[in-house]
Amino acid sequence: MNDKKNINIYDIAKISGVSTATVSRVMNNSPKVTEKTKAKVMAAIEQCGYTPNIFAQGLGLNSMHTIGILVPSIADLYMSNAVAHIEDILHNAGYDCILHCSGYSAKQKETHIQLLLNKKIDALILVGSTYAGSEDTTHNTDYIKQAAKRVPVFIINGLVNGDNIYCTASNDYQAAYDVTSALIRDGREQILFLTDSKSYSANQKKNGYLDALRNEGKTLDESKIIHTVNSVYTVKDMLTENEQLSFDSIFATDDAMAIGAIKYAISKNLHMPNDLAIVGYNNSTLCVCSEPELSSVDNKIEQVCQDTCNRLIEILQGNTDIPNQSIINCSLIQRGTTNFE
Amino acid sequence: MNDKKNINIYDIAKISGVSTATVSRVMNNSPKVTEKTKAKVMAAIEQCGYTPNIFAQGLGLNSMHTIGILVPSIADLYMSNAVAHIEDILHNAGYDCILHCSGYSAKQKETHIQLLLNKKIDALILVGSTYAGSEDTTHNTDYIKQAAKRVPVFIINGLVNGDNIYCTASNDYQAAYDVTSALIRDGREQILFLTDSKSYSANQKKNGYLDALRNEGKTLDESKIIHTVNSVYTVKDMLTENEQLSFDSIFATDDAMAIGAIKYAISKNLHMPNDLAIVGYNNSTLCVCSEPELSSVDNKIEQVCQDTCNRLIEILQGNTDIPNQSIINCSLIQRGTTNFE
Repeated sequence: MNDKKNINIYDIAKISGVSTATVSRVMNNSPKVTEKTKAKVMAAIEQCGYTPNIFAQGLGLNSMHTIGILVPSIADLYMSNAVAHIEDILHNAGYDCILHCSGYSAKQKETHIQLLLNKKIDALILVGSTYAGSEDTTHNTDYIKQAAKRVPVFIINGLVNGDNIYCTASNDYQAAYDVTSALIRDGREQILFLTDSKSYSANQKKNGYLDALRNEGKTLDESKIIHTVNSVYTVKDMLTENEQLSFDSIFATDDAMAIGAIKYAISKNLHMPNDLAIVGYNNSTLCVCSEPELSSVDNKIEQVCQDTCNRLIEILQGNTDIPNQSIINCSLIQRGTTNFE
Repeated sequence: MNDKKNINIYDIAKISGVSTATVSRVMNNSPKVTEKTKAKVMAAIEQCGYTPNIFAQGLGLNSMHTIGILVPSIADLYMSNAVAHIEDILHNAGYDCILHCSGYSAKQKETHIQLLLNKKIDALILVGSTYAGSEDTTHNTDYIKQAAKRVPVFIINGLVNGDNIYCTASNDYQAAYDVTSALIRDGREQILFLTDSKSYSANQKKNGYLDALRNEGKTLDESKIIHTVNSVYTVKDMLTENEQLSFDSIFATDDAMAIGAIKYAISKNLHMPNDLAIVGYNNSTLCVCSEPELSSVDNKIEQVCQDTCNRLIEILQGNTDIPNQSIINCSLIQRGTTNFE
């Protein structure tokens, strides 16, 4: 009984003659346990030569088995899908999830991380590249590094360097590079780039688009990069009203914007993909609602979430040999709005 | 200082010369507070003639200010929208939210409610009519009544009678009745009813459909009620393969199924709404992705959530004069797949 590493909750339960659930309740100071039962369990713990505190830490019994999840908005399709995957995986691994929605402002993000840290969480998952900083604001990622001093922090689709920070990102740079190259090889000369964000991921996509143009010897035209809102009608109206804008293809960083482009093309009797090729991003349910259906980048959200949760579980189980960054490759799902070979 | 009702956290903070946040930390036994500060705050509490425990209960300081939210699936558009609204409203009112996703089985629902109750939540919100029972299973709503003995329980879009249970539902029966009546007045003789669920809400819709047919003197044809999956392609394929099925209109209880019907109509060169009228449900983003765009019932999810949260906040503030049930009327948003007058 002196090999402390081999003592587990089953041993304590057996020695004290109670269930493992009861042992767990004692360690968590549950009011449901009688004093008599508590005494039996504590005696068993002492018999094994452990102080309750060290014992509890070793088995994770002192933890709430709770993971904090922060998303900017759960109404966003990409994020609600991510949270659904994460919640499912973590629940099956025995963890509960506390969800907070922070919005997009730096101040709110910091406030919500603090609120979650105050909840005795075992780890923090930040969903979305908005947490990895933004090119046009002065707020940086120090607040994430501060949080990582208290619990391991996992970032879905953003890369932040730092101790105890683990990032899994889809390779948005490469996906955008590949889509843009495919459009150029397809003979497209004027590729409109629609984006609704200046997040880490949005920048990766923009850089992929720009580098592909550069490497294919195309001139860069800043007027082809349009910041807009991720809404079907905003994009349709914007394209309709901007009559001086000329383009033969559109690459949008979210599907709803690309659907707006399809609606514009239909209203103008443009044939897709001949007159106008369109590519969206996220490969959401929206893609199959339109006619023609939308070609879109599948950014492998399920795989990104699985990778994140696998690493989280490993780390909470004490495995320290976990790489800090992991990149998942995307793939283009072609439907009716492109016909790349 | 003897009017206990008028003592609040600001009084205690003022008397003890600390911030309200510090008072709150003392009441929650936070390890961050020094013994000296704690002593000052406790002295102020005593000065006001309260025992800490009663004081804490009265001000809700002993609570975690946390609301448990249970949804069957957060990947569902309707539910992720609902959770987004709820989280936003409750956060602004000073509450945190713990999210669990239960799936649809009776056993899992009960397990998750128990897990949430163990988290010291102040109230429980069940999102979706699946929690209000189902017509074809033996599981009942006793587990909700048990939960309501511990915390107030709020049900979004389901009606369950019981003490400490508060329900806000959209009037799905009336909406389905009205849509069916409008289709009949529009001259439709064969109205297909597509449903993916046997939940409380799904039954309300089916009953509205059946009662409208009855009241308009139409014969009921059970083969017109089709249970399917809420997926665009499942419905498109089902309609394509069922060549013996005859219909001049389709009413689907979720938008994705209705979009599948639109895709079927396009593949068959049917004019909408002349050859085929289609109505969806939930008025989601999907409605504007197709051409023609989908007419759909707006079930006022934002209003339902606001009503639920208003009542929750009132009850947690001690207002006992809150009605147990609240019904919100829906409205049909007409787009290209219908042209009712």
